[in-house]
Amino acid sequence: MTSPDATAVTHEDVAAAAQRLRGIAHRTPVHTSATVDERTGAHVFFKCENLQRTGAFKFRGAYNALACLSSEQRARGVLTYSSGNHGQAVALAGRLLGAPVTVVMPADAPAVKIAATRGYGGDVVLYDRRVSPTREEIGARLAAERGLIVIPPFDHPDVVAGQGTAAAELFDEVGPLDLLLAPCGGGGLLSGSGIAARALSPSCRVVGVEPASADDATRSFRTRVLQTVSNPDTIADGVRTPSLGRITFPLVLQYVDDMVTVSEPAIVTTTLFLWNRLKLVVEPTGAVAAAALLEGVVLARGQRVGVILSGGNVDFESVLAHARAPRLAAAALIP
Amino acid sequence: MTSPDATAVTHEDVAAAAQRLRGIAHRTPVHTSATVDERTGAHVFFKCENLQRTGAFKFRGAYNALACLSSEQRARGVLTYSSGNHGQAVALAGRLLGAPVTVVMPADAPAVKIAATRGYGGDVVLYDRRVSPTREEIGARLAAERGLIVIPPFDHPDVVAGQGTAAAELFDEVGPLDLLLAPCGGGGLLSGSGIAARALSPSCRVVGVEPASADDATRSFRTRVLQTVSNPDTIADGVRTPSLGRITFPLVLQYVDDMVTVSEPAIVTTTLFLWNRLKLVVEPTGAVAAAALLEGVVLARGQRVGVILSGGNVDFESVLAHARAPRLAAAALIP
Repeated sequence: MTSPDATAVTHEDVAAAAQRLRGIAHRTPVHTSATVDERTGAHVFFKCENLQRTGAFKFRGAYNALACLSSEQRARGVLTYSSGNHGQAVALAGRLLGAPVTVVMPADAPAVKIAATRGYGGDVVLYDRRVSPTREEIGARLAAERGLIVIPPFDHPDVVAGQGTAAAELFDEVGPLDLLLAPCGGGGLLSGSGIAARALSPSCRVVGVEPASADDATRSFRTRVLQTVSNPDTIADGVRTPSLGRITFPLVLQYVDDMVTVSEPAIVTTTLFLWNRLKLVVEPTGAVAAAALLEGVVLARGQRVGVILSGGNVDFESVLAHARAPRLAAAALIP
Repeated sequence: MTSPDATAVTHEDVAAAAQRLRGIAHRTPVHTSATVDERTGAHVFFKCENLQRTGAFKFRGAYNALACLSSEQRARGVLTYSSGNHGQAVALAGRLLGAPVTVVMPADAPAVKIAATRGYGGDVVLYDRRVSPTREEIGARLAAERGLIVIPPFDHPDVVAGQGTAAAELFDEVGPLDLLLAPCGGGGLLSGSGIAARALSPSCRVVGVEPASADDATRSFRTRVLQTVSNPDTIADGVRTPSLGRITFPLVLQYVDDMVTVSEPAIVTTTLFLWNRLKLVVEPTGAVAAAALLEGVVLARGQRVGVILSGGNVDFESVLAHARAPRLAAAALIP
């Protein structure tokens, strides 16, 4: 175990990642909305990572991490553990870079996610959550047996640097901002965004947003001691991560200005708003940062605000079922 | 009744409409997709009118028609009959141009559509479909009583010219195309697209697409005699129009190269594909043209193809219910 090093990732790393991703990752569009601006009193720029390859920003970090390996390492292959967007991102990055990819997934993961990961060329290894140790332990054992390099979902300098390229593109396109909102799970996207902001828009406040029921990073930020959460009950499945990482925690402390939380109804309402009004397919995790602004948790009147819509791989039925729940009846945003 | 005049709308009218719409209508983005290109063997450009103001291309024609009125006419007010996108488009255009707008809608129209039309400032007049004459007759009587100008949904030269600006923007952005696909209801968007193509990309084939169950325009095109359809059973509610119009029919005959039809399962499957893979919220009507390409009705291998995604005002629950129907079980595109 290496000791935490707050300087482990720099803006030079983000800039180098951007070079590696050029012509490979999508330079995703930035959407604006008169409705959103009227409602918030701010000028809001949505960075549409739901339109990124594999449907989420995760492709940036995964591709950058694989591109940083030696060709010999890539030829041996990589391994990751993720039933979500990171697994698909590593699978596609491996296919593009000629690296065999093994993805460890629980046997009860949704069949469509397993199929999607295989569709990108990943070799899926299923395990039984009821009898197996943690996915990290299974991954480490398999990687050791097979000589594979592990590409974790967030706690890796090259992954963080890759994720930072989304915010870097946003600043490049719209100029300096007063406020940047990003969702926070393991802190890869958030810390990468903070590093980019510090260099490209130094007076921009960077605020991470979590579901209230998965507020470990917010508590870690306030106490400056790593806090954890266990199987939080949130529809935002991309930020159910138990805690920040050894690399991302000090980066968040160094580069992030504040953390806030949003309620489940706020996440669902905002997801539906983004579908119905902006006509953008986002997943609930992708709506978490927007929820902080649109539901009034963060006030930004008169400010230029960036919001990262992190992903768009959504189960429509599940979101609509949540929206039908009584607590959201008043919102009634479904047309 | 004036006699049909195939020269009633020209590219000069489309260009003039584009001038009127500049800075008012959105210049909607053009999306591309490696997945779509691989699947079709074509290079496909999606013109995203689902991202137009009020969520559909209809705003172009409505605004152009109102902008062509004298200020005296606008001050008296306008009337339209539409429970869908055209009604909302006229309501917003009227608000922007200072014209009071009356929208005649059936009393059993979805409450959210009535609310949306009122939200854009329209004065909604409800009628009982069980006892009243047609919406055209009610509209004509009300307009005569109140001295209002009627802005019909498609059969009007200024509406056709406005709709043509979507295709004009597409050619302006991506250059000449080999094929342009547009959905066809009353033929306003399709004939406008044909007029724009003839001037801006003369060798481009323009093909209109209809649901198979609402194939009146296809039959009219083949027989060169106006055919009608009565209350067709299609999920694509924007193209349930009974027939082409007196103005649009000759324009379609003059400027359109072919008409094809798509099945209901093809429309639903394509709608879900656009949601899940392109992350774009489109309504079933907005997916009709894409369905012809993605479901293999139109072959375009090696060609540069434009596809107009006409609108995004969708009832998610309804589309998902259709997708769950047994005939679509094999498609299983919901992640």
